[in-house]
Amino acid sequence: MEFSFDEKDFVSCCGSTKFAKDMVLASPFSSLEHAISVARKIWFNNVDVNGWLQAFSAHPQIGHTHAPSVASEASAQWSKGEQSTALSTATGSSLQELSEWNAQYREKFGFVFLICASGRSTNEILAELKRRYTNRPIVEFEIAAQEQMKITELRLAKLFSSREDI
Amino acid sequence: MEFSFDEKDFVSCCGSTKFAKDMVLASPFSSLEHAISVARKIWFNNVDVNGWLQAFSAHPQIGHTHAPSVASEASAQWSKGEQSTALSTATGSSLQELSEWNAQYREKFGFVFLICASGRSTNEILAELKRRYTNRPIVEFEIAAQEQMKITELRLAKLFSSREDI
Repeated sequence: MEFSFDEKDFVSCCGSTKFAKDMVLASPFSSLEHAISVARKIWFNNVDVNGWLQAFSAHPQIGHTHAPSVASEASAQWSKGEQSTALSTATGSSLQELSEWNAQYREKFGFVFLICASGRSTNEILAELKRRYTNRPIVEFEIAAQEQMKITELRLAKLFSSREDI
Repeated sequence: MEFSFDEKDFVSCCGSTKFAKDMVLASPFSSLEHAISVARKIWFNNVDVNGWLQAFSAHPQIGHTHAPSVASEASAQWSKGEQSTALSTATGSSLQELSEWNAQYREKFGFVFLICASGRSTNEILAELKRRYTNRPIVEFEIAAQEQMKITELRLAKLFSSREDI
């Protein structure tokens, strides 16, 4: 079986234009595992630092579902799903604290706090944000890129499973 | 003795606005060594990745003396001086090759090839460019930042020695 998707589908997985274009060029994929392995290579070797920043900017602030530059409706829906544990465990005051720390994080690093939120509670996310806040900018930049890759893998899996349903 | 400079002077050493502002805030300095130690801390801990890209964009392509966003006349003059060995050892064909590799480098990484050129011949610079070209973008990003710091240190030394002449 062979799987092909268009650029818009890949942009929903990861908001870097270069990533999406290179994924189209590398299509078709024989399996999800094949696509993930190619995606990792493209993300870490081909996409430059501007592309990483572009992808980060496609994410909403954690605790929110709207990004300043949402890549697509699918991306916004997935983001909501990934944060479902966090949103269901949130209280008014923990959301307020998260929002304040998010602002501080963005002020220090120049991009949104990125974390693969799937299955994580608001308190876990907040603890991780505080821990990572002490990092040097370049260290945090690479951690954010690794988190983006985890999110991309989960979304590629959703993309493939939507195809298998047909 | 105490040394103070204004934001414009520090921007000539390193084209990040955040760097220059934080250096002014940390002034006065008791010595060049004191200023360099503070500058390292600011550059690697306070300046975010957008600030690194801003500083890189203030440099001319190696082999040239004009940057797309030259921070100042002093910066352009210093750049010329730092490249004097390279320029005096360059031949037409080596400059042509350097120019082509520079373009390839910029295409891959999204910023100009940065190297502390002082005392280095065109051939040495070209060999280094080819070697570094194979790096992953994030690895190369950090190397470029280290080269920027070496350039900043040399320029801070020039700034301080100009003050000592008075």
